[in-house]
Order: sequence, then structure tokens, then C-alpha cells
Amino acid sequence: MGQTIIEKIISKHAGKPVAKNEIAIVSVDGVMASDTTAPLAIKAFKEMGGKKVWDSDKAFLVIDHASPAPNERIANLHSIMRDFASEQGIKLYDVGEGICHQLMVENGHVKPGQLFLGADSHTCTYGALGAFATGVGSTDLAGTMMTGKTWLKVPPTIKIIFEGRFPQGTSAKDLILHVVGMVGIEGATYKAVEFTGPALEDLSLSSRMTIANMTIEMGGKAGFVDTTGLELPYSFEDIKPDADAVYEKVITVDVSALQPTIAVPHSPDNVAPIQEVVGTPIHQAFIGSCTNGRLEDLHVAAEILKGKKIHEQVRFIIGPASQEVFNEALSDGTVEILSKAGVKFIPSGCGPCVGTHQGIPGKGENVISATNRNFQGRMGNRDSQIYLGSPATVALSALHGKITDPSTLHKEEILI
Amino acid sequence: MGQTIIEKIISKHAGKPVAKNEIAIVSVDGVMASDTTAPLAIKAFKEMGGKKVWDSDKAFLVIDHASPAPNERIANLHSIMRDFASEQGIKLYDVGEGICHQLMVENGHVKPGQLFLGADSHTCTYGALGAFATGVGSTDLAGTMMTGKTWLKVPPTIKIIFEGRFPQGTSAKDLILHVVGMVGIEGATYKAVEFTGPALEDLSLSSRMTIANMTIEMGGKAGFVDTTGLELPYSFEDIKPDADAVYEKVITVDVSALQPTIAVPHSPDNVAPIQEVVGTPIHQAFIGSCTNGRLEDLHVAAEILKGKKIHEQVRFIIGPASQEVFNEALSDGTVEILSKAGVKFIPSGCGPCVGTHQGIPGKGENVISATNRNFQGRMGNRDSQIYLGSPATVALSALHGKITDPSTLHKEEILI
Repeated sequence: MGQTIIEKIISKHAGKPVAKNEIAIVSVDGVMASDTTAPLAIKAFKEMGGKKVWDSDKAFLVIDHASPAPNERIANLHSIMRDFASEQGIKLYDVGEGICHQLMVENGHVKPGQLFLGADSHTCTYGALGAFATGVGSTDLAGTMMTGKTWLKVPPTIKIIFEGRFPQGTSAKDLILHVVGMVGIEGATYKAVEFTGPALEDLSLSSRMTIANMTIEMGGKAGFVDTTGLELPYSFEDIKPDADAVYEKVITVDVSALQPTIAVPHSPDNVAPIQEVVGTPIHQAFIGSCTNGRLEDLHVAAEILKGKKIHEQVRFIIGPASQEVFNEALSDGTVEILSKAGVKFIPSGCGPCVGTHQGIPGKGENVISATNRNFQGRMGNRDSQIYLGSPATVALSALHGKITDPSTLHKEEILI
Repeated sequence: MGQTIIEKIISKHAGKPVAKNEIAIVSVDGVMASDTTAPLAIKAFKEMGGKKVWDSDKAFLVIDHASPAPNERIANLHSIMRDFASEQGIKLYDVGEGICHQLMVENGHVKPGQLFLGADSHTCTYGALGAFATGVGSTDLAGTMMTGKTWLKVPPTIKIIFEGRFPQGTSAKDLILHVVGMVGIEGATYKAVEFTGPALEDLSLSSRMTIANMTIEMGGKAGFVDTTGLELPYSFEDIKPDADAVYEKVITVDVSALQPTIAVPHSPDNVAPIQEVVGTPIHQAFIGSCTNGRLEDLHVAAEILKGKKIHEQVRFIIGPASQEVFNEALSDGTVEILSKAGVKFIPSGCGPCVGTHQGIPGKGENVISATNRNFQGRMGNRDSQIYLGSPATVALSALHGKITDPSTLHKEEILI
């Protein structure tokens, strides 16, 4: 019987063929923890008698969730991470260097076909590379840091085929929001999702990461974006599912019919075509996070805002996915365009997305955000409303002070 | 009998001549409150029965001390400010637009010879323009917002004369730290300070602001920097003291003998020539605040860091004094140079200086900071050590990971 991608990768890492629902013990190619989870993982590692990380080249710590430190307690947690990285000789990415998932991909710490664990739910992002990457808890991560191994139950797979072409004004973000709405927030719980089809072939790595990233918003254990057409700065093996692989479900989506899509409060699967919410007043706008903080996302915003000023009622915050992204956006003039339009840049990190700091909305405020979750209180205030959309939707809504549909404007009009 | 500058300004605003130690009722030319003080001032204004601010063109609110909002409580305080500004038709500077004192000067809200109240201790900064500006509490500010008036006891004046020329590697910051050390932290309590002398004539407005800003670190009610040589984008009256004005004390300082100066923990008057602390390891560096976050400060750092990388042990944060400063530093390439050297930019605001967020040091860490206060816990952690220095000292120390003397290097060496 043929294998799905996840069956292939787990089999390789278990050293024997496995099929769905089997339990496998696997070796891992890398682990990562952020400042939300690393301090607990380090504590557990020590309590379990851990002396040395199994492979100091394969463990990574990232200070990104509450960075720069917003208070003394967190500053001291960051110190624990620095001390551990120094003791163990492992790589630590400090304040403002980037969002953990971006850094793992950008710096080649995870590659196609690998098996990677992160103590963060959006670790599934690396499925954009055709890697099996999933989120685990701090104590599970501690065990893997000691042994280089973990156990898994092999998930069944849902296959989603994207046909057609993206219409003007839509993007990978609109597509994945649409899919989350179709599948539902628990529709892929403990399942892998393979995203494939001709509509994906022209997508950049960044857009592929946006899609894989939100697999967890359907409960998915992992997401895989077909690597056909993927360009990476190194050669890699293109892992494809076998032609006779068995899927739990196959869904076909006609991307040509996609509209700009919004997740309305208070769930990422509570999606609607943008027309249903056009005109909703906006107080804060945010582009950033592991979902949409990359250079192409900043370019979209700059194209819309060049030579203009954002609406006076709106605070527009951008958090680049990494300092490398910020540096590239400095070099090509994107930061200057956006800052002169009124955008405020925060150091690369997760802050506003996870509600830890750097842009908590006020009571009664509406936020338009190119992030991944809009649960009540997600951004730090239960009395605010979060609308999720694409970077184009966020930038255009910030410009007009209300939710605005990027597909109804001709490109010429946007640029005027 | 001749008058000092402060006697002249208060007399003009009282409508009659006044001399030191008299009580005067004065009209004010403007008031300002930040997010630390405005919510209380607004509450007091309403409790006192205030309906309309006496002059909606002369009152300003600035969200800068904890901005972007680090938590729900503060986000809701920011909303109170926005609502009040909207009700009253007064100007509010929102998240990331700038540090209150910078904005008042940069946007011409305060001018030479004016009398201005701010609900923040560093309001004395505007003495760089020859304005009498001083900090008041929230309830005092509320009273002035209703009436446009306040009462004052006319302070006596200390005159400080700067002779000679600044040696290589020193700046206005080294000078004012040296003066704070001489006069002591309570040495000018409820007194005005006139800074004058030929050494000041070539100083930029930014450097003059650095000097006036730290008058409060001697307890001063106000500081005046002689406006000789000052360039402003508008014409102004050059207010000079009368030749026979009476001073409480006259101090002469030979600037030619100035060395790079550091305030060591835990007081701004605990100063030492930098040689006494050279080599002290540094974990965090900060350039920013109302003291040293202006374009010339960023230029100094960029000159030192161009084409280099900051020391791997150091987190180097810069908070521009305003978004206008950031935009200028974007246009001229300064931000790009600094970011590529590893500097992390925060949105314009006070965060790290006042310890509210955006860079709280860890336990046991040493910080080198181009700010104004190094009291124990000032930056948010009582178990860290803060060393105050000039932007050149901060940048060079960040480069080497330890306190480093900018005067011992020839310019050529710094630039290599």
C-alpha cells in the first residue's frame, strides 16, 4: 500500500515502514523552544537529570514571544535561556533577531523531509518545506533534548487540492482562511494535511509558509505544501506521496472563485467573504507574526501605502518576521515608505499576535490583523474584536479606517 | 535691580515685575501630559467640574511612556486619553509618534520666552529654547487645563559658565553628567539654572536639549541654555539676563578638561571619568529617551558601528525620540547601518528608560544607557546596574561588550 508524505517521513525516522494509527519511536532532526516554553523545558530537562543536549547543533532557543523583555519576571526567564544556551553550547536567537519559525526556515535549521519538534503550536509552518514539524509541550521537548527521540502516533491525512488561479486582490492568506472555514477549527485534529494542486506552483516560500502555518487552526498535527515549484537556496529531495496513498478525505478547492476572506470574531474558522464586513471601523492594524511578517507581506503593504498616510483613527503596527526581513526591507526602501505613511515598526517578535505586549488593543476596539488567531482576548484584551485578513486587506483597511476590500479596486486606483 | 531669565519670563506672564522668592500667578502658553499622568489629570479635571480646556490649541496629550500598550490596563488608559482629546478637540500624539518633550519642541508647541507646564519631570528640556518649562503633578495640570493659569514661587538662579572647547570624544552628555556630579542630585532643588558661556555657542538644538533635560537631575525647577548661536526654523526673541541680575551662585567649568563621563550605579550624580569603569562587561545598551534619542545621537552611533557587528553578548536597543527622527534616519541610511550592525529599533517612546517595558534588563546584568537616570530599579529590575553615558560611549561599549572610552581612540581607529 502506498504512503502519504507523513508516513514516508515517519517511516524514515523510525527506521521501518509505518502506517497510519501506528505508534512509532522516531529520531528527530531538530528541536526548538521559545521564551514561552523554553524556561519550563529547561527546568524539566534538569529535573529529569539531563546533563547534555543529545546534539548541540540540533537544538535552538529563540527569545521572541515577549521581547524585548516587558518586565522583570520575563527578563529573568530570558536570562535562564541565555545561561542554558551558553552551558550547552547551543544556538540562542536573542531579542529582536526574529520569530522562531521564521528563523528555523531562514537559517536552514530545518529542511525538506526532516522531522522537527518545536515547543510552539505553529511549528507546523515548516511543512512549507515538506518537513514534518509539529508542536509539543515543554516536558516532551525536554525528553527529546535528552534523547534525540520522541514517540508519535502516525496521523491519517486529508488531501486538499487547489485548482485554478488566484484572482486579483487575493493571496495565500485568503486561501488558508477559506480552507480553515471549510474544514473547521477541529476538522483536522490529529491529522496531517497535504496541500497540493496547480494553484500552488507559483507560490513563494513565504506564501507556502502562510498556508502550512495555519494548519494548526484546523487542529492539524502537520501540514505539507507540495514542494513542486519551491525554490530553496540548496538542493533538496522532493518528497511526494505515493500515487496509491490512502487519504481520509480529499477536498478540491477552485481558487479562481476565491474572494478576499476575513475571519470575524472570535474564531479563525468563523470566516466570511470580505463584503460581509466591509465598512467595519478599525482602530488598530497589525502585519506580522509567523503567518504574515515576511518581505512579500511588507511589499504588499508598501505598494498600497506609498506616498499616503494611514487613517488618523488607526494605529498600524508592523513586526517583521526576522531582523533579516527588516534589513532587506530597509535596503529596498520598504520600511521608509511604510514609516512615512505612519506605520510603527516593532522589533521582530510575536508580541501583538499573542497579546503579550507591544500593542494590546483598548476596550471596544476593532483590530484588523494579518495573523493566525482571533480568539476572544488573543491580543490581550477580551473586550476587543479581532478580524483576520491578508496583508493587502490590513493595509488597505488601515488606509481607510474601515475594513476595505482589495479586490474591488483596480491596481491603478490603489496606487493613486 | 536686574533680572535673571526666569524672573523676566515669570514677570511677563504675571503681568508685573517679580523677583526671586515672590509668589506669582501666571498665565501659561501650553500644557502637556503623557500616558503616565494624563489619565489622572483627566480624572481630576472632571472631578473639579472641568467642562472645556481653557484653550484647545494649547493643550497636548502624548502616548509615549508605555506605548504600544503592553497590557490591557494601559490600553484602556490610552483609550481614556483618546476619548478626552476627541471631546476637547485637543491634539493627541498616539503610539509611536514620539516622546512628549521631543514632540513639543519639534512641532513648535513651545517657543523661546514662553511658560509651559508638563506633567513630567523632564519638561525642563524646553529650556534649550530659552523657555521656562517645568514639571507639575497631574492635579496641578488639571487646574491649569481649566484656567490657563498656575501659581509659582519665583526660584533663585545658579549660573554655570562653560569655557573652552569640547575635547575629542566628549559631548553635551558628558558635560551635563559632569555638572550633575559637581552640583549633586539636590544641589539645585527649586532653583533655576542658567547655562551659558562660549563652549555652548556651537551646540545644536539637540545637544542643548540634552543639557537642559538633565537640570532636573540636580533638582532644578528649570534650566536655560543661552540661546546665542541657537538656530530655529522661525525667528525668536533672544532673552538674556540683565547684566546686573543677582545669582545665588556662579560656577565656571573649563570644558577643555572634560573627559567622557559615566554616572555609575545608582545615582545620576555618582559620576566618574570613564577610565574608572573601563572594561566593565555590558549586557544591554540603550540609546533613546528625551535625553539622547535624536538624529545626531543616532549619527554618532552609526559612525562607530558602520560595517561592524555589536558584541554577541550585548542587546543594543535604540528608541528614536520621534517618528520624524526615525524617518530622517531612514532617509539618510542611518537606520540601515545600525540595524545591520545588530541594533534593534523600538517605536519611539520612553519604555526602557523608565522601565515600563521594551527592554527590562535581567538579574545581575549591566546596562550602558544614554538616558537620564540610573536609580536602582529605574529600568525595571532592581538587581541590574545602570551606567549612564554619551551615545558615543554607549555605541562603542556595545561594540566591544564592555565599557569603552571613545576619547582614547583616534577617529580613524573607530571607523576601521
